[in-house]
Amino acid sequence: MNNKKTNNELSIQLHKKLHGKISSSSKIKVRNERDLGLVYTPGVGAVSSLLASNPELASEYTIKSNTVAVISDGSSVLGLGNTGPYGALPVMEGKSMLFSQLAGLRSFPIVLDTQDTEEIISTIKHIAPAFAAINLEDIEAPKCFEIERRLQEELTIPVVHDDQHATAIVVLAGLINALKVVGKSAEDCKVVLLGVGAAGIGTARLLVKYGFKDIILVDSKGIIVPDRADLNSVKKELALVTNNEKIKGGLAEALNNADIFIGLSTGGKLTARDIKLMNNQAIIFALANPDPEIIPEDAIGAGAGVVATGRSDFPNQINNVLVFPGLFKGLIMSRKKDVTDEIKLQAAKSLAGVIKKPSRNKIIPSVFDKKVVSAIAQSIL
Amino acid sequence: MNNKKTNNELSIQLHKKLHGKISSSSKIKVRNERDLGLVYTPGVGAVSSLLASNPELASEYTIKSNTVAVISDGSSVLGLGNTGPYGALPVMEGKSMLFSQLAGLRSFPIVLDTQDTEEIISTIKHIAPAFAAINLEDIEAPKCFEIERRLQEELTIPVVHDDQHATAIVVLAGLINALKVVGKSAEDCKVVLLGVGAAGIGTARLLVKYGFKDIILVDSKGIIVPDRADLNSVKKELALVTNNEKIKGGLAEALNNADIFIGLSTGGKLTARDIKLMNNQAIIFALANPDPEIIPEDAIGAGAGVVATGRSDFPNQINNVLVFPGLFKGLIMSRKKDVTDEIKLQAAKSLAGVIKKPSRNKIIPSVFDKKVVSAIAQSIL
Repeated sequence: MNNKKTNNELSIQLHKKLHGKISSSSKIKVRNERDLGLVYTPGVGAVSSLLASNPELASEYTIKSNTVAVISDGSSVLGLGNTGPYGALPVMEGKSMLFSQLAGLRSFPIVLDTQDTEEIISTIKHIAPAFAAINLEDIEAPKCFEIERRLQEELTIPVVHDDQHATAIVVLAGLINALKVVGKSAEDCKVVLLGVGAAGIGTARLLVKYGFKDIILVDSKGIIVPDRADLNSVKKELALVTNNEKIKGGLAEALNNADIFIGLSTGGKLTARDIKLMNNQAIIFALANPDPEIIPEDAIGAGAGVVATGRSDFPNQINNVLVFPGLFKGLIMSRKKDVTDEIKLQAAKSLAGVIKKPSRNKIIPSVFDKKVVSAIAQSIL
Repeated sequence: MNNKKTNNELSIQLHKKLHGKISSSSKIKVRNERDLGLVYTPGVGAVSSLLASNPELASEYTIKSNTVAVISDGSSVLGLGNTGPYGALPVMEGKSMLFSQLAGLRSFPIVLDTQDTEEIISTIKHIAPAFAAINLEDIEAPKCFEIERRLQEELTIPVVHDDQHATAIVVLAGLINALKVVGKSAEDCKVVLLGVGAAGIGTARLLVKYGFKDIILVDSKGIIVPDRADLNSVKKELALVTNNEKIKGGLAEALNNADIFIGLSTGGKLTARDIKLMNNQAIIFALANPDPEIIPEDAIGAGAGVVATGRSDFPNQINNVLVFPGLFKGLIMSRKKDVTDEIKLQAAKSLAGVIKKPSRNKIIPSVFDKKVVSAIAQSIL
């Protein structure tokens, strides 16, 4: 914990020093009146006239060519919950940094002073023209689904709720390689997924598409079964395609003879005793941030075969940073609008393929592996 | 015109090549997992928690420290009229470039897919948290006044409709020096102001505050007099404090024995004959963009004493680029929220003061004079 405290303190110091982690600058230096007359009045008037008549050319002549808006209402930030817009801003800035550094995209963070679904939708629609794509981030479930769906219908650019799709892709990529390490196959594995927010739901949906046959979802009230009265519409839908044996109860009941645990909860915990309920060589993805559901050495000690977390200070970091730069780059380059299941499955397979020989401590590449972004972007083209 | 055609073509070529005139980048390079853990998860979580509890610290720890949003609905772009958001975008990008290059501020352009007053207000309110200040730009009158007033009431950051305030400041600065050149004083001059949109109204208001006693406003229907039935509320208000002698008619009637002409119209024209109606040593500010109401040599030929335009390819460029970088820098540095008359008068005097010895061809400094931004910013502190 000492280490973590230091990291937090260092992060606060760094943020205080930087006064904002991203900068904006001119792509060319305006040195004299002649330059000014080209980038601004009077010359820019010719470009304005051209784009007023041909709006589709904005993708060529303006920042719309490759700018990603990273947008949050701050309703579900990291593992912290509802921090509001100011709590969300440093995270969104971090994403914008990574879009520019890792994928060469331009990116601006926008945090919203509303958490109302209709206001979020209309605000994003109204600011969309300057952007090539919109990354919805850290918006709580289930409203994130409605917001994403409506904006996808109403806008002509990609609108991607990263927590659902990028997390699903990176989790699947990690599982593909983890299964190789433990010598099991997807269709034979029983999967327990703890935490049924945006990331959990997106992941469950993609695992079904990939071919996992037996998934049990567990939220804060216990195992999801169709007859639970407290389910929102998305959970109801998932209740029908998961939990084949209609097991009831809590996490322990779900874990009996399970092969894979995926933790995407806020503040959930997994104990050594829980892992002992699972089959041999269990795959443990303890992805709660910043505190994993279980510390890797404890999981290994209890018999787990492969352990991954969301943390950069343990092996096997399952981080959506592995996905979003390449995913957006691929969508923008290919002018594709929708993140289809096919795109997600291909992206997961390509990401897994970056590791030629998966091992217990290396099921997923580093964020800094230069092959990652292009593997994902290329899989979309 | 050949020259201008070439400039337009060059501008279009340049924009096509750049794919957006501004770039975004990380302020620090994220080299490894340790860096990532400071700028992003898990370390950023500590900053999020801090700001969730202390939103006022966002001005210190995030891009809110000095980021200007340049926002337009594209309803009144340059002299082009209603170009919509895509036509506005290259102009807003140009402003963002200049904010960063000239004032060291961070700036993002936002163009709106709505021209409805209430939707514009609610959209801007909802995206405000990440910004230190909001620059409203190229929004048509009279709705720009309502939008600016309402946002100033509802937000805690400066909201400045540049077309009104920056234009007013730079016009007044130019007039202060032009009056020295021709040896006249403000209170004795009759001023004709053609074009009663946002810029014209803002300018008229500031000239009254400065001490001009006799201003005649002319719009596309002729001279503004209180009994005209077609006046909007802002023009009605101005009708009461201008045109002392209640002259009626068109531009020619207004120009009789006038000392100063200020053109802020869209497509208005001034002829040599018009200038001959004016007093000797007339001051002509032909500021319509991109085509001035009269070409400087024609005005000088007809007897004008000082001529200024909005163009960089003639002497005396009255360009709001002279004002907005320093104005926003001063507001942000001083944490002042309102652009008061006092701030505008001081800024105009400071800007005029950058020219120690005004002359016919040098009443206003160049945009590239390093003293400009600091003169204005310092006048606000």
